[in-house]
Amino acid sequence: MRPDPVDDATLALLLEVAGTPKPGNVDRHRDLDDLRFEAFLGGAVGAREGLELAADGEAGIGRAFERGVAGMAARAGTNTQFGCLLLLVPLVRATVATGEDDSDLSPAAVDRVTRGTTVDDAVAFYRAFEHVDVAVADPPADADDLDVRRGGDAAPALRERGVTLRDVMALSAADDADRIPDRNAQEWVEGFPRTFRAAEWIRSDEGPLTDRAARAFLGLLAAEPDTLVAANHGPERAREASDRAAALLAGERSTSETIDAAAVHGADLDAAEELAAAFVDEGINPGTTADLTCAALYVALRRGTEVER
Amino acid sequence: MRPDPVDDATLALLLEVAGTPKPGNVDRHRDLDDLRFEAFLGGAVGAREGLELAADGEAGIGRAFERGVAGMAARAGTNTQFGCLLLLVPLVRATVATGEDDSDLSPAAVDRVTRGTTVDDAVAFYRAFEHVDVAVADPPADADDLDVRRGGDAAPALRERGVTLRDVMALSAADDADRIPDRNAQEWVEGFPRTFRAAEWIRSDEGPLTDRAARAFLGLLAAEPDTLVAANHGPERAREASDRAAALLAGERSTSETIDAAAVHGADLDAAEELAAAFVDEGINPGTTADLTCAALYVALRRGTEVER
Repeated sequence: MRPDPVDDATLALLLEVAGTPKPGNVDRHRDLDDLRFEAFLGGAVGAREGLELAADGEAGIGRAFERGVAGMAARAGTNTQFGCLLLLVPLVRATVATGEDDSDLSPAAVDRVTRGTTVDDAVAFYRAFEHVDVAVADPPADADDLDVRRGGDAAPALRERGVTLRDVMALSAADDADRIPDRNAQEWVEGFPRTFRAAEWIRSDEGPLTDRAARAFLGLLAAEPDTLVAANHGPERAREASDRAAALLAGERSTSETIDAAAVHGADLDAAEELAAAFVDEGINPGTTADLTCAALYVALRRGTEVER
Repeated sequence: MRPDPVDDATLALLLEVAGTPKPGNVDRHRDLDDLRFEAFLGGAVGAREGLELAADGEAGIGRAFERGVAGMAARAGTNTQFGCLLLLVPLVRATVATGEDDSDLSPAAVDRVTRGTTVDDAVAFYRAFEHVDVAVADPPADADDLDVRRGGDAAPALRERGVTLRDVMALSAADDADRIPDRNAQEWVEGFPRTFRAAEWIRSDEGPLTDRAARAFLGLLAAEPDTLVAANHGPERAREASDRAAALLAGERSTSETIDAAAVHGADLDAAEELAAAFVDEGINPGTTADLTCAALYVALRRGTEVER
C-alpha cells in the first residue's frame, strides 16, 4: 500500500523544520527569538484538515489552503508554514489526481491543478491572509485593489476582474528588474521546477533525511535569491545571502543553471553551521527557500525516499 | 471547536521526542547510535491509522494498537513509540467515550476503557509484537505460553485461558521483590496515575512545552525506576539512574510520593544536559519514562496546554 499523501505532506512539514543546519531558519537545533521549533510541530499537526481537503478531489484548492492555514495558525499561534502549505496543497491534489498506481507525481500533473484553479480559489486564498501575518511585498501599482493584505475584502475586485488563483500567482511571479519574484508563485506558474529538481537532489543523496534536507536547502538558496530575505532586507542582501550559500557547495561556485546534484551532495554542513549562526545574527531568514525544501521533501517521499532510523 | 484527539495524540508523540534534555533518550538535540530523531517523526506520522481506530468507538482497542504499531514500524523502520502508543490508545478512546463537551478526560474514564478490553484485544496486542523488536522481560514461570515474544502464536493459549488485554497488563504490572514492574502496564491497571500526575506538572509549569516535557521526564524518572533500564541493566542500575535524576530536582531529594510540582518545575535542565551525556555514554535509556511523558503531554494538551510560539 502506498503511503497516504496527507501523511507524506505532514512528514514533509516535520522533516523540513527538523532539517539542520538550514541557515537563518528555525531547525532542529535552533529557535528564532520569536519563533520556536515546537510551534512548527503544532503547525504541522494543525494543517491536517486542509491537507485532507487537498487530498479530497472535490474541495476547492483555495479552500483547502485556507483551512490548512487556519488550522496551522490555531495550533502554532503564529505563521509557521504558510508558504509550505501553498506548495503542498496543489502537490497533494496532483498526487490524488494522478491516481494510486501512478508513481509519477509529475510537473505536468501539478500544472493541471494550478491551471484548474478558479476565482473562488483566489477569494479563499485572500481570506487565508486573515488568519496570519505574512510578510509580503507591495502589489504592482495597477493592482492595489488586489493587495493580499485586504484579505476577504478583495473578493469584489477579484470577482469583477475574474482573477483565478493561478492569475494571482502569475502577478507575484512577475520577474521585473528591481524586485526578487515570489519563488512560491513562480512554482505555481512554472510547473514546480525548483521543487522537482531539489526532490531529485534529496532522492539521490545519502544519509539522514534531515541532512539531505539541509543540503537541498543550501542548493536552492545558492541557485536563486530568497523572496523573504528580499522582502525584509532588499534584493542586494538577498543576492549576497545566496552567494554565501553557494560558497558552501562543492566544486566551482555555480549559477542557478549549473548547480547540480554533485555540488549539493558535497555541501559543507560544518561550514553551514557557521553560516546559520551568522544569518541569525544578521536577521537573514530565507523562509521561501525553506518552503521549497518542504515541497521537495514531499515529492521525494512520494517517490520512495524514507526516513533513516 | 475542541482539537481532534488524534491530532493531540500525534502532537504528543512529536513533543515527546522534541523535549530536551531527556537523559538517555533520543530528543531534539540527540540521536542514539541506532536510532535517529527523524525515525520518531516518521513513527508519529505512521501511527495515524491506529490512533484513528482508537478514536473510532467501534474498533477494538487491541486492533487500534496493533495498527498503530504496524504503521509506526513501517514508517520509522524500527520501534520508536511502541510504549507511547500503548498508553495513547486507551487515552484517546477514553477521550472519545467521555464526549466532546466533557473536558475531564479522567482516570475513571480510561479505567473503564481498560476494564472493557477483551480476549480479542489481547490477541491483537500479541500480534503487535510481530511488527517490531521490543525489549521485554521474561514472563512469570507459570506463564511461559503467554510470552509476548510468541506474537500471534500465543492466541490459542490466550483464548483457552480467557485472558483479556487488561489481564495481560496485570501480569506485567506485578510488583515482586526482584524485578522492576512494567510502568506502562501499571498505568493500564491503576488508572494512569503517573500520566495524570505528570500532566498536571506540565500544565502548571511555564515556558516552552519542550522544556516542560523535559522537566516532567526528570520528575517521572526520579519518582520510580524505569522499566526499560531495568530490563537492559538490572534493577540496581535502574534505581541508581532514578537517584541521579532525583538529584536534579529542586529542594530536598524526594521519594515517589513526595515529589511535587515545585520540585519538578525547579529541575535543573543545565545539569540534565550533563546527565544526558552520561546516560548515553553508559547506554542508560529510560524509554518507559519517555512513554509516560508522552501520555502526560497528551492529557495536558486535552486540558488546554498549547505549544509556545
